[in-house]
Amino acid sequence: MSIPMNLHPDRLFPADPAVRTLARSLYATVKDLPIVSPHGHTDPQWFADDTPFANASALFITPDHYAFRMLYSQGVRLEDLGIPRRDGAPVEQDARKIWRLFASHYPLFRGTPTRTWLDHAFATVFGIDERLTPESADRIFDRINAALATPAFRPRALYERFNIEVIATTESPLDPLAQHQKIRASGWKGRVVTAYRPDPVVDPEFEGFRDNVERFGALTGENTLTWPGYLAAHRNRRAYFKSMGATSTDHGHPTALTCDLTAADCDRLFQRALAGTISPAEAEQFRGQMLTEMARMSVDDGLVLQIHPGSMRNHNPAIFRDFGRDKGADIPMATEYVRALKPLLDRFGNERNLTVILFTLDEDVYSRELAPLAGHYPVLRLGPAWWFHDSPEGMLRFRQLATETAGFYNTVGFNDDTRALLSIPARHDVARRIDCRFLATLAVEHRIGEDEAFELAPELAYGLVKRAYRL
Amino acid sequence: MSIPMNLHPDRLFPADPAVRTLARSLYATVKDLPIVSPHGHTDPQWFADDTPFANASALFITPDHYAFRMLYSQGVRLEDLGIPRRDGAPVEQDARKIWRLFASHYPLFRGTPTRTWLDHAFATVFGIDERLTPESADRIFDRINAALATPAFRPRALYERFNIEVIATTESPLDPLAQHQKIRASGWKGRVVTAYRPDPVVDPEFEGFRDNVERFGALTGENTLTWPGYLAAHRNRRAYFKSMGATSTDHGHPTALTCDLTAADCDRLFQRALAGTISPAEAEQFRGQMLTEMARMSVDDGLVLQIHPGSMRNHNPAIFRDFGRDKGADIPMATEYVRALKPLLDRFGNERNLTVILFTLDEDVYSRELAPLAGHYPVLRLGPAWWFHDSPEGMLRFRQLATETAGFYNTVGFNDDTRALLSIPARHDVARRIDCRFLATLAVEHRIGEDEAFELAPELAYGLVKRAYRL
Amino acid sequence: MSIPMNLHPDRLFPADPAVRTLARSLYATVKDLPIVSPHGHTDPQWFADDTPFANASALFITPDHYAFRMLYSQGVRLEDLGIPRRDGAPVEQDARKIWRLFASHYPLFRGTPTRTWLDHAFATVFGIDERLTPESADRIFDRINAALATPAFRPRALYERFNIEVIATTESPLDPLAQHQKIRASGWKGRVVTAYRPDPVVDPEFEGFRDNVERFGALTGENTLTWPGYLAAHRNRRAYFKSMGATSTDHGHPTALTCDLTAADCDRLFQRALAGTISPAEAEQFRGQMLTEMARMSVDDGLVLQIHPGSMRNHNPAIFRDFGRDKGADIPMATEYVRALKPLLDRFGNERNLTVILFTLDEDVYSRELAPLAGHYPVLRLGPAWWFHDSPEGMLRFRQLATETAGFYNTVGFNDDTRALLSIPARHDVARRIDCRFLATLAVEHRIGEDEAFELAPELAYGLVKRAYRL
Repeated sequence: MSIPMNLHPDRLFPADPAVRTLARSLYATVKDLPIVSPHGHTDPQWFADDTPFANASALFITPDHYAFRMLYSQGVRLEDLGIPRRDGAPVEQDARKIWRLFASHYPLFRGTPTRTWLDHAFATVFGIDERLTPESADRIFDRINAALATPAFRPRALYERFNIEVIATTESPLDPLAQHQKIRASGWKGRVVTAYRPDPVVDPEFEGFRDNVERFGALTGENTLTWPGYLAAHRNRRAYFKSMGATSTDHGHPTALTCDLTAADCDRLFQRALAGTISPAEAEQFRGQMLTEMARMSVDDGLVLQIHPGSMRNHNPAIFRDFGRDKGADIPMATEYVRALKPLLDRFGNERNLTVILFTLDEDVYSRELAPLAGHYPVLRLGPAWWFHDSPEGMLRFRQLATETAGFYNTVGFNDDTRALLSIPARHDVARRIDCRFLATLAVEHRIGEDEAFELAPELAYGLVKRAYRL
Repeated sequence: MSIPMNLHPDRLFPADPAVRTLARSLYATVKDLPIVSPHGHTDPQWFADDTPFANASALFITPDHYAFRMLYSQGVRLEDLGIPRRDGAPVEQDARKIWRLFASHYPLFRGTPTRTWLDHAFATVFGIDERLTPESADRIFDRINAALATPAFRPRALYERFNIEVIATTESPLDPLAQHQKIRASGWKGRVVTAYRPDPVVDPEFEGFRDNVERFGALTGENTLTWPGYLAAHRNRRAYFKSMGATSTDHGHPTALTCDLTAADCDRLFQRALAGTISPAEAEQFRGQMLTEMARMSVDDGLVLQIHPGSMRNHNPAIFRDFGRDKGADIPMATEYVRALKPLLDRFGNERNLTVILFTLDEDVYSRELAPLAGHYPVLRLGPAWWFHDSPEGMLRFRQLATETAGFYNTVGFNDDTRALLSIPARHDVARRIDCRFLATLAVEHRIGEDEAFELAPELAYGLVKRAYRL
Repeated sequence: MSIPMNLHPDRLFPADPAVRTLARSLYATVKDLPIVSPHGHTDPQWFADDTPFANASALFITPDHYAFRMLYSQGVRLEDLGIPRRDGAPVEQDARKIWRLFASHYPLFRGTPTRTWLDHAFATVFGIDERLTPESADRIFDRINAALATPAFRPRALYERFNIEVIATTESPLDPLAQHQKIRASGWKGRVVTAYRPDPVVDPEFEGFRDNVERFGALTGENTLTWPGYLAAHRNRRAYFKSMGATSTDHGHPTALTCDLTAADCDRLFQRALAGTISPAEAEQFRGQMLTEMARMSVDDGLVLQIHPGSMRNHNPAIFRDFGRDKGADIPMATEYVRALKPLLDRFGNERNLTVILFTLDEDVYSRELAPLAGHYPVLRLGPAWWFHDSPEGMLRFRQLATETAGFYNTVGFNDDTRALLSIPARHDVARRIDCRFLATLAVEHRIGEDEAFELAPELAYGLVKRAYRL
């Protein structure tokens, strides 16, 4: 028997009637604002080729580690969800079977943002009005698949329907950006920009580091086996990325460490990195130095520097061995910023033409470290609640913990940071609802004026992100 | 003048009328469910001998470190509360005097769970309808004592009246489990099971470690002075505990460190532990190795592995010297899990027949470490808010911080973890009320359906704990 | 166009009508209680000389790092706000221009306590009924300046109007306390006491440490170049401070480390400190030892010991170089207490005549470390939410995280800890409102009785601070 979908117009607003009423009014002013998505991991090929998505499972389950990690945690094999194995061993190919398996575990997501995002996509994108259950699984699967086969559900159409004003993808310096060039050449009016994420040539522990650096040289015409040539190659490649719309760089190191070493020390570390003789501690130093080098280049070229530290990648070696990266086995660690960022800030903390956006997976630092830092340094801004904390409670904690010291204007609006195209409107909707809820609470408690809440709501949904990311 | 007791039927529900109404309805469906108490420190002798409790002070004050630590913090001497000294020096023996002293300090507990538990026991077990004050102290003391002298207030009667379905105690491998045997032999239908807590033979820093290991050998018929014999003794003793109803083991190390050493290294550490020449760092390694060994045995025998790390025991040396262990002087420390558990998880994190339940005294790790770990690894589950956090605010924080990443189904319901028999129904009642409050908030905010809240409430109160602990 | 000021009588109370109504009733009983300000950084010269404040900018902006750090974080130069440079280079002198600049950035403070404090002072002290905007800036500037020129707005008159019962300033042992003597000699009935803050002679890394220690000897007639003479000088100077009304000492070390070294080790560290050959780690040890020495002296003289650890001072070297200390560039760090305080507590944790008040900038420790410690040790009390956390959300978190383990009676009421005279009533008002809100929530949720809430409210506002600080 069909159970109605619970996508209530007042969802995520608090129970109190006064706060709810004001939250609703605030939300009405921002819900239809264009989506600015300054950081994420969607595939530019979608927009370049505009080919239809294959089916509901390939759209919602197989690529989404939020989705399959929860089932894995309850004993479902990744093979049974169709996650490809690195050794090519057989995995489930029947999309309907995968969908049914997922549907039968859908109650696991109760109380999680994944549930909210999926329901939002089912309802608003596909017009589904019943809950996903084993009973409804086939109907929903068929309905989604039928829609995906129509032109209105191709990537570009979805981009337009979602009212996306601009979306950033994330590429390696070694990427020729062919998809972005194809998008540009197509004359399509969608704005898909890249972002400079140099891990493969910045992290001495990345697979194939030396080969990557050599290819980096070939791409840029610089002698990347010398420290000055290597830096020149970065400048060169950043300029190319900028020409392809990039306004930001992105750095996902294990810690927030920055360094400010002498050129001689940099050269020594770099040569050890190339030779493969660098120690783990030195590799960390090298990455830290590169953050400072990136800041120095940003002062010149204006690219916004994003720091996403603190994830221990591939915590589960069996999963990494059998399925590879990004399979839901990255786990946050405690992350220190006050000492770690000091070398970079000592050098560039008071610059005029630099913006450094800080993210964290360690919520403890919102009030202790990040808000005090951002409430002082002109170069610093706070990114929104990230990854595991991109959730109603996580967003509320971010506002409750950061606002009193950093204010609203040292924050940068919302990032969806997603690989899942269909979750983009859902995620922005959650952020807009939660921010309106937070503002409504402040206003009803007479901590800000109602007029101020109405002025802040579109800033949090739209204005701040455009200015912070220079989009 | 008598002050009425404040045991309101809506206690712990939030003020908002809509949430309160739904919380009340949810609670109505779970309040009478049987109590499953899978981990705690009640004395099996109570149920074996079924002798009456001596008096109100011996029941509520002397054995309860939550109670007397608060008075001690405000300058009351433990001697004056009748806490026995190790040197046998005289302490207060007059139970009425102790009770009066406690009553005169009862306002100290305002806003604490101890106050909630005591009031609950006074009202629901003894029918007391006035607040404990210096004025009412004698009346309440007399009323409790009169009740305790009657058969209805003996341990077994209380067990039945509290609607306990099963309760686990915690014993050392060196314990012959005579009380449990006596309970079984008695034909009483109460289900009191043991749990395997091997600190005395697993912690090289435990008093009399070598003697303990030798007794362990004698008990099991294994040569426990060799590493293989020592492991065999564990297997043997776990089987005996299992035969006495145990479904779990329990480990309370200073940190969550696990190790996965070679057999040669294990043997070397073990011999140094026996010889008393082991360093503190090596002792920590040995304990960490033993967690991994316990996990290996659990894969075979199915006992659920509980890890309760992060307490610095006996922080106050004067209290330890004069009064011994468990006197309210254990203090939590920051506790790291992501690196600490990796050796065990690398080895057994993807097993089918293993359940590892993680507890913490460091609430920072709920959202940063524990929920991300439990939302991925099939062997991991999250224990409820523990010890100092076994409280309304502590439970709410646990749900708010863990649910969005781990969901509800990677949690295991409630543990009372208590030495105080009378607090068991009170503690479960608080947990049920707070969980219903949390579910009601989600439903009123349209984050889950009301039908889902009604399905989850009995799971959190009863279903999850039975399945997780295999009870 | 003028925008009305939003200083609503129900500000900071929650939306729920039942809780709001009770919070309002509780607040009515405490709002007019005298202000007891046991710790802060107001200038005793204000009360000694009673000269008028110069103008609105000199009163509200130039001395208040909360105010100018926010503008600095958004690109406003400190020179343009009239912050004096150490090199004497010109900075803005036009108070009206500074005020206008500040007014044009006033929206930055939305959602921050600074906004609340300023609005409170504008409205209640100066009778301003419109919001500070670029349009109203001149009117408000003129109105404040006109008021400041009248006798009713001199420091002593404000002290009286604010209903301050006693206020503590903070002085170095090298301070002759001439201002305090002048206040006493004046016959004015205001009670302005000092507090003993010995950083210049206790911190080997303080500028001019050896010179300071020599002056310390000259002031006290002790040979401060020997360890025993140095300790004797402290005893001597503490007695003098006590004679000038001091009831407390104050210690702001980078960490909470305490030590309990042998006299020989103390002497050795002290000689290295004097010789300037002490290492950073040894300097930390020396400071830690001095906390233990201060505790020992407090056992004798009864001065309450305050520990304010965990700030990395002068994080921004350019700001320190150009503008000096206390310019909004101090950043909190993670702070550990359980191990750090053990040496002091091992020695003096169970004393009768000692009170140690713990503060933190690391909110993680409220529930994990501070509340468990204070809920056991008789000497420990918890200071209120401090500095960046002296805010509505910060205060609520403190109560929510500390109360269940430490209770209310191991806390010490409110500290304003401010350099800004005009913010004192505002800050105490916020604390009283938030505490009443917290109590009202507990009572409406039937966690305490309403009668108990009415008994606790004046304790939190007035009673506890007087007793804890022995004022």
